[in-house]
Amino acid sequence: LKITPITSPANPLLKKIRGLHQRSGREKSGLFLIEGAKLVNEALKKGLAVKEVVVSESFLKAGLGASHTSDISALFVVDDKQFQSLVTTEGPCGILAVAQTPVHDLEKVFGHKSPLVVIAHGIQDPGNLGTMIRTALAARATGMILTKGTVDPHNPKVVRSAAGALFSLPLVCNLDVEQVISSVKAHGLSMVACEPAAAVPFWQVDLTVPLALLFGNEGQGFPGSILKMADKTVCIPMHEETESLNVAISAAIVLFGAVQQRLSAVPTTNP
Amino acid sequence: LKITPITSPANPLLKKIRGLHQRSGREKSGLFLIEGAKLVNEALKKGLAVKEVVVSESFLKAGLGASHTSDISALFVVDDKQFQSLVTTEGPCGILAVAQTPVHDLEKVFGHKSPLVVIAHGIQDPGNLGTMIRTALAARATGMILTKGTVDPHNPKVVRSAAGALFSLPLVCNLDVEQVISSVKAHGLSMVACEPAAAVPFWQVDLTVPLALLFGNEGQGFPGSILKMADKTVCIPMHEETESLNVAISAAIVLFGAVQQRLSAVPTTNP
Repeated sequence: LKITPITSPANPLLKKIRGLHQRSGREKSGLFLIEGAKLVNEALKKGLAVKEVVVSESFLKAGLGASHTSDISALFVVDDKQFQSLVTTEGPCGILAVAQTPVHDLEKVFGHKSPLVVIAHGIQDPGNLGTMIRTALAARATGMILTKGTVDPHNPKVVRSAAGALFSLPLVCNLDVEQVISSVKAHGLSMVACEPAAAVPFWQVDLTVPLALLFGNEGQGFPGSILKMADKTVCIPMHEETESLNVAISAAIVLFGAVQQRLSAVPTTNP
Repeated sequence: LKITPITSPANPLLKKIRGLHQRSGREKSGLFLIEGAKLVNEALKKGLAVKEVVVSESFLKAGLGASHTSDISALFVVDDKQFQSLVTTEGPCGILAVAQTPVHDLEKVFGHKSPLVVIAHGIQDPGNLGTMIRTALAARATGMILTKGTVDPHNPKVVRSAAGALFSLPLVCNLDVEQVISSVKAHGLSMVACEPAAAVPFWQVDLTVPLALLFGNEGQGFPGSILKMADKTVCIPMHEETESLNVAISAAIVLFGAVQQRLSAVPTTNP
């Protein structure tokens, strides 16, 4: 294990890392930032293309877990204060990795025997998007498509809240929603939009077919032009005093509605 | 509408309000803090016992919405800097209310024809608890019980993330989990614990019966002593690469599994 100390704040690697705090820096370089031991380990375990690993002096002194060192061939060390300027969290995480952003195409997401694709349209909150990614993987989704106007999935807050699922679930980003919907149809998937104003509960439609589930911007429904293109629109029946559900919660409910239908061999009600 | 300016930082009302930032202050006074126009309006609409309403000078100058003034008989005004010391968020919310903490007993939570009760055991994250409260109301839960060691539901962060549901859903707090389970059984409810290691998926048990759903501390399962007392333990079947789901997500999935069973007249699978 080669350990290289970095002392100059103007060091190009440190500048590159700080550039990854912004979406523009991530998009230009095709790299993103992974912060904290748990996530760095997860990324190494999943075989992500990790470019550089940087630790703080304290972290190095406290001793690297065996799990790190086995997969890392080179390590950069900076002092604790400098390290803090490289990460986006306040806490003492002590280790970060720069990794190559995985690039997937729509074929990867659709090309399954029984595709279950989540389309996130205009989701703004990084925590919500991260939770949706984590939940989509748990529900055995085959991939996720993010339309233009959705928060960058390699935003450090999304990376954190996705809790490693980001390293496993194929994502395709930055597409026009109309383009996505055409592609969904061209691949023979049923397009189901989840919309509070819909009349049909999600459990009344067949979610076992090749399926794309569309979830929209928090608080807003979809424009009519999008709803018209969906094969079906479904709702989550709610207590009348509830205005709406958090979009990550809505996605989880409908996704596991699909899991239930897909894994159930017997009817689930009227037992 | 009587408007009273407050200029002294030592004013007893301001001291009282700052005391409500801490759990001890809330528990001693039986009061809690509601921050922001949307939530204050919601509290007034739901008939919560609002004691005092305080606004910042800028908020007053910008003009109170008609919705406020109709339900408020007296208003206190402080300068903007002072106001900022009274609230727990950074943003410019401009209005806060001090309200009496609603007190409910277990009879209120259980005393329904078809009770659906959520038991939150040791939930630590305020955002998760707030989301659980919001989702429980949406799923027509009849109430929620919080065991000792669970975050205070009147913590300002919980109040925010519950998005008004806190003002409608009966909550009972600070009970021993053993005491809660005995009471659940004494009232004839079926006690279902949600636990990642369980063998039976949630959709394979009858959730239409009088029901208490137990959700545990994020990341940890339940001790065997609690599992032994449950009538059933259920899991959410997940992709093997997923360690766990967020507790608010888990609660939403199982709660709407119950909604599905309760509202479905026909089998939902094998259509």
